Amino acid sequence: MKELKEAILKYGVGIGDSIVKVDSFLNHRIDVELSTLMGRDIAAHFAEKQIDIVLTVESSGIAVAMTTAQALGNIPVVFARKSTSLNVGPDVYTAQVYSFTRQVLNTIRVSKAYLPAGSRVLVVDDFLANGAAIEGMRDILTQAGCELAGAAVCVEKGFQAGGSRLRASGIDLYSLAIVDGIDNGKILLRED
Amino acid sequence: MKELKEAILKYGVGIGDSIVKVDSFLNHRIDVELSTLMGRDIAAHFAEKQIDIVLTVESSGIAVAMTTAQALGNIPVVFARKSTSLNVGPDVYTAQVYSFTRQVLNTIRVSKAYLPAGSRVLVVDDFLANGAAIEGMRDILTQAGCELAGAAVCVEKGFQAGGSRLRASGIDLYSLAIVDGIDNGKILLRED
Repeated sequence: MKELKEAILKYGVGIGDSIVKVDSFLNHRIDVELSTLMGRDIAAHFAEKQIDIVLTVESSGIAVAMTTAQALGNIPVVFARKSTSLNVGPDVYTAQVYSFTRQVLNTIRVSKAYLPAGSRVLVVDDFLANGAAIEGMRDILTQAGCELAGAAVCVEKGFQAGGSRLRASGIDLYSLAIVDGIDNGKILLRED
Repeated sequence: MKELKEAILKYGVGIGDSIVKVDSFLNHRIDVELSTLMGRDIAAHFAEKQIDIVLTVESSGIAVAMTTAQALGNIPVVFARKSTSLNVGPDVYTAQVYSFTRQVLNTIRVSKAYLPAGSRVLVVDDFLANGAAIEGMRDILTQAGCELAGAAVCVEKGFQAGGSRLRASGIDLYSLAIVDGIDNGKILLRED
């Protein structure tokens, strides 16, 4: 997606050989106009899929999940919780998600009531690296008897294994920008 | 706000004498149309305040912060982090926020770069009970030399102390719905 790629090249910072820092517009400060455009782009890509629910995981995925759901006609967003919360009851689906960046195993959870069996669900997240978050959400959708209609991420780290593995497993994965590497701080984007 | 109050009365669940469970439309599953309407309502209330930035704290505040920022003309959202993250560098403002519901002390943090001195900031959150989150964000804005132009919350627990204390301190606090108590599971809303 052109506007996101421009923002990555203009404001993104590459650190070491794997960190793509885009917190100035994507996951700490949010460029709301860009987020709205990304939501429209994702919605257009999945327009024929008759999506019922957008599923993401807190926190950084919530903004683009919101704008995607708006563009899909104000369908509901459900966000998986990483922590136990008074806002989530005991009747939940859970999955284990290993965070490579933090090196911790998180349990994500979604209340069963908000994933009715048979729903067509689009999974949305800000980043895709090793694919653990999306696989965790897929696991929850399987438990719920929902259909994973597709997955969309803002930034895919193309030099890590997640994207290839998810596509090989048959998921319709749409990445708005794919980073192929970092060269002396410069972020290298894949051409369309 | 009429639509939110209707949703609280229709879908909200009162538990014990203090828990207001609205996770079916506000903070686990999100009713995106309602969230968009809430953002417009908050933006209209603060239309004269020339807001530069919407500040919230992860995770449940992000959705309504997004819709508020959209309605204010696509101004940026900044969300304070509760955890240390690779997405937040070391150059941060921090504040201590005590969570009464979880009985833990969280440190919230915002990168200094995203709160330029002199900015007029609207603080937005989903819930207001004891007011600790909003006071923490006010603390950060003071450190940053920003102006707290106002605060907006979806649901204020009017039977807890936060709202009164914040108003007494001079904050322009706007609550879309105020819960005055719970009576045998029934949520009692304050009349306008």
